[in-house]
Amino acid sequence: MPQVNVLDATQRAAVEVLAGAQSFLLASHVRPDGDGIGAQAALARILLARGKDVRILNPDRLDQRFDFFTDGLEYGVYGGGPVPDHDVCVLLDISELSRCGELGEGLAAAASSKLVVDHHIHLGDEWWDHAFVDVSASATGLLVHRIARALGSELDPLAAAAIFTSIASDTGWFKYSNTDEETLQVAAHLVRRGVKPFEVYRALHQRQAPEQPGMLSSMLARAEFHGENRIVVVDLPSSMAHVSEHVDSDLALDVLRAVEAVEVVVYLRELPEGGCKLSLRSKTDFDVNAIARRFGGGGHKKASGATIAGSLADVKRAVLAAVVAGLELFGGAR
Amino acid sequence: MPQVNVLDATQRAAVEVLAGAQSFLLASHVRPDGDGIGAQAALARILLARGKDVRILNPDRLDQRFDFFTDGLEYGVYGGGPVPDHDVCVLLDISELSRCGELGEGLAAAASSKLVVDHHIHLGDEWWDHAFVDVSASATGLLVHRIARALGSELDPLAAAAIFTSIASDTGWFKYSNTDEETLQVAAHLVRRGVKPFEVYRALHQRQAPEQPGMLSSMLARAEFHGENRIVVVDLPSSMAHVSEHVDSDLALDVLRAVEAVEVVVYLRELPEGGCKLSLRSKTDFDVNAIARRFGGGGHKKASGATIAGSLADVKRAVLAAVVAGLELFGGAR
Repeated sequence: MPQVNVLDATQRAAVEVLAGAQSFLLASHVRPDGDGIGAQAALARILLARGKDVRILNPDRLDQRFDFFTDGLEYGVYGGGPVPDHDVCVLLDISELSRCGELGEGLAAAASSKLVVDHHIHLGDEWWDHAFVDVSASATGLLVHRIARALGSELDPLAAAAIFTSIASDTGWFKYSNTDEETLQVAAHLVRRGVKPFEVYRALHQRQAPEQPGMLSSMLARAEFHGENRIVVVDLPSSMAHVSEHVDSDLALDVLRAVEAVEVVVYLRELPEGGCKLSLRSKTDFDVNAIARRFGGGGHKKASGATIAGSLADVKRAVLAAVVAGLELFGGAR
Repeated sequence: MPQVNVLDATQRAAVEVLAGAQSFLLASHVRPDGDGIGAQAALARILLARGKDVRILNPDRLDQRFDFFTDGLEYGVYGGGPVPDHDVCVLLDISELSRCGELGEGLAAAASSKLVVDHHIHLGDEWWDHAFVDVSASATGLLVHRIARALGSELDPLAAAAIFTSIASDTGWFKYSNTDEETLQVAAHLVRRGVKPFEVYRALHQRQAPEQPGMLSSMLARAEFHGENRIVVVDLPSSMAHVSEHVDSDLALDVLRAVEAVEVVVYLRELPEGGCKLSLRSKTDFDVNAIARRFGGGGHKKASGATIAGSLADVKRAVLAAVVAGLELFGGAR
């Protein structure tokens, strides 16, 4: 087993709740990602193996990419109304009920105690009953791994694959700055428990259609550099909507970020219904969230987005001016 | 430290040679890659720290991508004639002198004893004096890590970064099927020794010119699918030599492999001096090494290459026929 993380009193109390209670409802955020889904699946399997009653309930449907480790688990999608009875609601990869969409109201109305398992920075009141939180952890799945160890639960191969997916998703497959020693140690331990990294990679990233390389080609052909190559812009008119739908945007953004001089990636898609969808990525400490917020959107410092009214040309001009100004390339809008 | 690999008598003898001899020449193969260069740098630093005389001599120049861990080491490029005097020649990531180009003759003529550190499958005589070979190891750098442990040598941060580069290079950044428990354990240990994975990733993969997205676009536009999409071929004529020079081929191959149906990637570049360079990648257990060998090349089961005489059209036809036959799609050549 990997090195021991000493749990604090709050974390130990959370583990005791997981050990002691009988019925659980596990929830994650809207558009649940690899970390949330993986953490849910792993914790569900750990609790089921201990004879608990476990339900999974999310605001949105499961992406089929995750089907290789969700076997035997039912991922419920919230349809409104009261949630099923349960003693403890575990919120995974999330610390605010508002990020659960309408499900948040259903959970708030339930009499259950609330246990948060998360690695995001939380602003505001610690409103929950119990928490297993560590903002330094690379993934929520890593926290579930610590919980399993604290419970003395061995991971079955599907739970191990689920945690591997969590970690791989939130570290950009061991590429981001959150890839620390524990992340790699736990990954090694999961391989010992039966995970084959190449099979996880294949399931998550190698299920594209044959059209994808050609579409990525069309997309990359539109890459334009601005501001001494510190900014790269890809703008897709609505006539290329099929491209944005089918191309794995992580892959496209990786290619654009690979350019040494690039600090900000601007990805704009004209929407068939009018307006544009903006995605911004930062390779440095430059805060793209501040730009996105100016256009009515938001997100993280390094990854943000917005939906903006206006033609593709106008939106592009406005966003580019904002980024250029932000980067203080020209002392203002161009 | 990661789990202990018990060394066999041959490996123990090789470690004793490294501990006992005084002057070393470390060589790798033509166009040395991340594994070869990383293994050389790490072993050089380990031996230098033990007070040995160490020279590095390669058939080809060092790629500048590796400059972040080669600081303070001189990577000599063989210019013909007798090689400098040395007691032990260590061949890294290679087991045949013929893969060293002309340097192979210089090394053969030297009176030194020859020690092979490699993880490639070797066919034919075990011609060397000493060997530290394990074909199940994901990278030659992993063998250098085992050697360091056997010698009781602590890795300095640059040696750790060198081994991380070795491992990351030969596992496709922990994506290939050779990514095993030891690989991830050693990676974790290297992070403990000071390696920052995101910095290694940036140095290796995010130093591209602004032309790269456009070039990758041109390259991907040439993707052709064959055999019910089980084979994807990209062929670059010599007029596109600038593309093959500047595009990170790992990235391009990743995009092609991401297509679900694809089992084999065939990447062909027409050389300005005539002939073609073939790179083959397998996503399954299909052995591309067997194909590469038929064309006078070799490598690994999942990643092999060859340099083949003939026009791009002829070579493409021949290789495609061999792959199709190998896959038994049509019961033979098409």
